[in-house]
Amino acid sequence: MLPGRDFFDALAAAAKAETLPRFRTGLSVVNKLLGGFDPVTEGDRAAETAIRALITEKFPEHGILGEEHGNVGLDREHVWVIDPIDGTRAFISGLPVWGTLIGFQSKGRAVMGLMDQPFIGERYFADGTRAWYSGPDGERQISVRDCGSLADATLFTTSPHIFSGDDLAKYRSVEEKVQLFRYGCDCYAYVLLASGHVDIVVENNLKPYDVGALIPIIEQAGGIITTWDGGRPENGGNILAAGSKAVHAEAMKLLSGK
Amino acid sequence: MLPGRDFFDALAAAAKAETLPRFRTGLSVVNKLLGGFDPVTEGDRAAETAIRALITEKFPEHGILGEEHGNVGLDREHVWVIDPIDGTRAFISGLPVWGTLIGFQSKGRAVMGLMDQPFIGERYFADGTRAWYSGPDGERQISVRDCGSLADATLFTTSPHIFSGDDLAKYRSVEEKVQLFRYGCDCYAYVLLASGHVDIVVENNLKPYDVGALIPIIEQAGGIITTWDGGRPENGGNILAAGSKAVHAEAMKLLSGK
Repeated sequence: MLPGRDFFDALAAAAKAETLPRFRTGLSVVNKLLGGFDPVTEGDRAAETAIRALITEKFPEHGILGEEHGNVGLDREHVWVIDPIDGTRAFISGLPVWGTLIGFQSKGRAVMGLMDQPFIGERYFADGTRAWYSGPDGERQISVRDCGSLADATLFTTSPHIFSGDDLAKYRSVEEKVQLFRYGCDCYAYVLLASGHVDIVVENNLKPYDVGALIPIIEQAGGIITTWDGGRPENGGNILAAGSKAVHAEAMKLLSGK
Repeated sequence: MLPGRDFFDALAAAAKAETLPRFRTGLSVVNKLLGGFDPVTEGDRAAETAIRALITEKFPEHGILGEEHGNVGLDREHVWVIDPIDGTRAFISGLPVWGTLIGFQSKGRAVMGLMDQPFIGERYFADGTRAWYSGPDGERQISVRDCGSLADATLFTTSPHIFSGDDLAKYRSVEEKVQLFRYGCDCYAYVLLASGHVDIVVENNLKPYDVGALIPIIEQAGGIITTWDGGRPENGGNILAAGSKAVHAEAMKLLSGK
């Protein structure tokens, strides 16, 4: 049996209580480097601790893969995949496009996921079958759009600086084909894709917790998310997400070099 | 006598009524190119029409500089400077970092300004003396921070692609010195600077309506905004904003080539 929406909401609320009070606290990055109070790392750790406590209490038999506090029981049937603050640079800069990511895997496959942006009050949730949005403008089921081809696509990536060498050349070969590209969104780019506002996301060197919650949101909104060579994305790595098969195939051809 | 906060709020409400219903309507960019329904251009025009109607009714003797509907009486003592949707790429992509910009000039000098992000519910306002924020987490006066030097600064710019040739080389000379840089924010970067979350913004080829409302917000929060060679920013062009004199001077030395 899959966990219920209520439980995901409780996890998001526990995370929010630790992250939001530390957002826009006005501390400069240099404070972090000098070893002083570091709101993003503190928020990340405290939120993951809070999430883990609830999971361990309710589902002691489940495994947990987290960014901050190590992994437990990754070989179990059910594993939670957690990134309390995805988009730490956005968080540090006061920009509300970071998110709390909570994913749920069954037998190694991502089946449910939640992305929460508590400052704006937006939540994206994949219930195992469908993907949902709730936010300032109400609640609704979400689905991807089909823009037809790369030439008509809007592309998002975190930054061109995440790529180097061969990866950079491959990324550029996609970027130069699209209608519009934009940098700087982390998890927020994927939920915009799932909602039909963006057509393609290309990133590299992702960790499993960067995508664990986003895979079901994209897939259950009708989109496609794989590695650059078309493999399952649960382990992270070089990731390609698209709103339609045609656009995904066109980009994969460029990114896989095949 | 300066116009009151109430009047600025009425202008922002009139703009919101035209922009927000067109945000995230899910139309792809290609629809725009095919000559179909274009939510961002429609929203831009309708919002500016609504703002102009209120200004003309209340202050018929004032001039208006707008993005969409041309200019009226730019030589008058008081001139309103309007950009109904700054950050059209963000608007098109469903990303809530666009804003409505309403500035007010006296004798060619920007003295009051408002930036509104209606999806999140954030509003930044310079009343002639002080700068204010209101949003999901309450209301407060805002002020810049002093990070000390470029080496400790967080830098924002819209995209490295806005620069070319000599401007690109100068921009890169700043980017390579900072602690953290981030792309993709338009007007939102300036209000984060005014709020003390970001230390420097560097852009080029701005129009007067891109900065008209932001100048007073930054200056009345204690920051500095000029052209790259230290001139007044009211006419747009190559713009440098910083949270402290030292950081501004350090960046201006690199950007002016002096």
